Amino acid sequence: MEDRFLKWLYERMSFFKKPLLVGVGDDCAVLAPQKEKIVVTTDTILEEVHFKPDTSPEDVGYKAASVSLSDIAAMGAKPLVLFAAAALPYKHSGGYAKRIVEGILDALGMFGVQLAGGNYALWSYPAAVTTTALGVSAKPLLRSGAKPNDLICVTGSLGGSILEKHLRFTPRVNEALYLSQNYKINAMMDISDGLALDLSRMMEASKTGCIIFESKLPISEDAIRLSKKDGISPVRHALSDGEDFEILFTMPKQEAKRLLNDKKIRIPISVIGEVSRERAMYFVRANGKKERLKPEGYIHGKRVGDSLKRRDCRNW
Amino acid sequence: MEDRFLKWLYERMSFFKKPLLVGVGDDCAVLAPQKEKIVVTTDTILEEVHFKPDTSPEDVGYKAASVSLSDIAAMGAKPLVLFAAAALPYKHSGGYAKRIVEGILDALGMFGVQLAGGNYALWSYPAAVTTTALGVSAKPLLRSGAKPNDLICVTGSLGGSILEKHLRFTPRVNEALYLSQNYKINAMMDISDGLALDLSRMMEASKTGCIIFESKLPISEDAIRLSKKDGISPVRHALSDGEDFEILFTMPKQEAKRLLNDKKIRIPISVIGEVSRERAMYFVRANGKKERLKPEGYIHGKRVGDSLKRRDCRNW
Repeated sequence: MEDRFLKWLYERMSFFKKPLLVGVGDDCAVLAPQKEKIVVTTDTILEEVHFKPDTSPEDVGYKAASVSLSDIAAMGAKPLVLFAAAALPYKHSGGYAKRIVEGILDALGMFGVQLAGGNYALWSYPAAVTTTALGVSAKPLLRSGAKPNDLICVTGSLGGSILEKHLRFTPRVNEALYLSQNYKINAMMDISDGLALDLSRMMEASKTGCIIFESKLPISEDAIRLSKKDGISPVRHALSDGEDFEILFTMPKQEAKRLLNDKKIRIPISVIGEVSRERAMYFVRANGKKERLKPEGYIHGKRVGDSLKRRDCRNW
Repeated sequence: MEDRFLKWLYERMSFFKKPLLVGVGDDCAVLAPQKEKIVVTTDTILEEVHFKPDTSPEDVGYKAASVSLSDIAAMGAKPLVLFAAAALPYKHSGGYAKRIVEGILDALGMFGVQLAGGNYALWSYPAAVTTTALGVSAKPLLRSGAKPNDLICVTGSLGGSILEKHLRFTPRVNEALYLSQNYKINAMMDISDGLALDLSRMMEASKTGCIIFESKLPISEDAIRLSKKDGISPVRHALSDGEDFEILFTMPKQEAKRLLNDKKIRIPISVIGEVSRERAMYFVRANGKKERLKPEGYIHGKRVGDSLKRRDCRNW
């Protein structure tokens, strides 16, 4: 019996490390029991929605794996294995699936994560790639733990991801794991649908509100570049652009002070505001003017308003 | 912040049982550690390939969940939680996603499995639904363990699934779990792409061959009905039709003898042949004539030959 893709994949994946006891090739992958809790996430990226028809398959695979790794990071957990399921258009050559797998392995390789199983099926429509990642954590960090007076922090810089970063971002796995192991973090999540929208979800889940300062927002170079193209201010891009895949977290003030002096963290960490008891979100402009912060985001290029009625994606 | 679908889902899913500590609503689901090994599988079903455009969304959800549950059953494992990811066409009303979830819950409800997370995204193309299931087993049963002189057994009856059963089959979760806990099973897998093809995979993985007897094949009523329509013999349907989702397993002769007298198994079990040291597959016709058994299957209505070059789906 000859099946080139499977033969290629089995050879490419022939080395399993613990805790993966059985990887590709059987009905299920098998994992050894872990002392820590197991965290699981699943995500889908779609052609024409999350990537373009001419995006390279390596970039598609890299992004598909990275969005799930970002969710594992968002729990302060260590990713272990990933599963990939793809619907692929007939029109592509046989090499397309392999090249997607190579992109997936690029992303997994950064963190020693193993590809443990999956499937693909051909059809007459654009590509859809779903990844499921498993990780472990002694104490997973939820989005619901923010406490009044916590400081609100973000990694990296925000906005303009659509220009380039959304395809080849580095999931904040190492940083979030380091934070979870060395600091008292009360709430953590990744920023996938825009800071303001994801922040509103964290505040909602934590039954708290917040105040955010314009002057403290880490605005990316790409947000500024994009602003010059579309006339929307860099600040608004930083507040509402999707797919930053940075980490949003809250911690007590003393902990934040310690963190800002930690030389082991190699990426920028910004304190952008504070959690409040009042369940409303405020935004303080650079000129001192205080206004309501709307939970708006741009999801895959579509503006999402307060009501979220126009949202086309749901993660649960 | 208002999001009707998520609100509905959170209410519908508000009760988590162990080992699920965090279910829908955060970046990841969280599972408590298990003493047993963890088995994981992921599967995708596509509109126009695995179901029709007019298939009810409840049936789509039921099938999507059941194909993954069948893979968990195929390891002799107990399913615990399931994740669902769907790409859905814009054209459907908001109720479509809910109805898919209801179908998923129908399937999960039979086995006390919890829906622990997922996502959906809308696009301009047909529906694609990916499910990932996690289960536990003290000793997962692999397809690679068949031993010469083992008897080869199948649950239920085979062939003609396309007429009806493929949408509303009962994954053999309870039976496979019972078998794994009460018998010495050497190899086990589910029949998803046709008996002959899946059997060839088991023999390949086990480095064995086999002999199968036409007279012992449990041919389904639907295989006979379908034969009257398409002129292909019922036996050939039983050998090569896909999506039976029955369980194929091998065990020592003494164990098989004991099993055939076990009144606790409520579904038919058939001994269809024997594992051999010679790495070839033979088929003994009802008239005693012995011929080679080709690893052919019909996958989603497409005939799959020896070379598998025309296969459009891969599971790994």
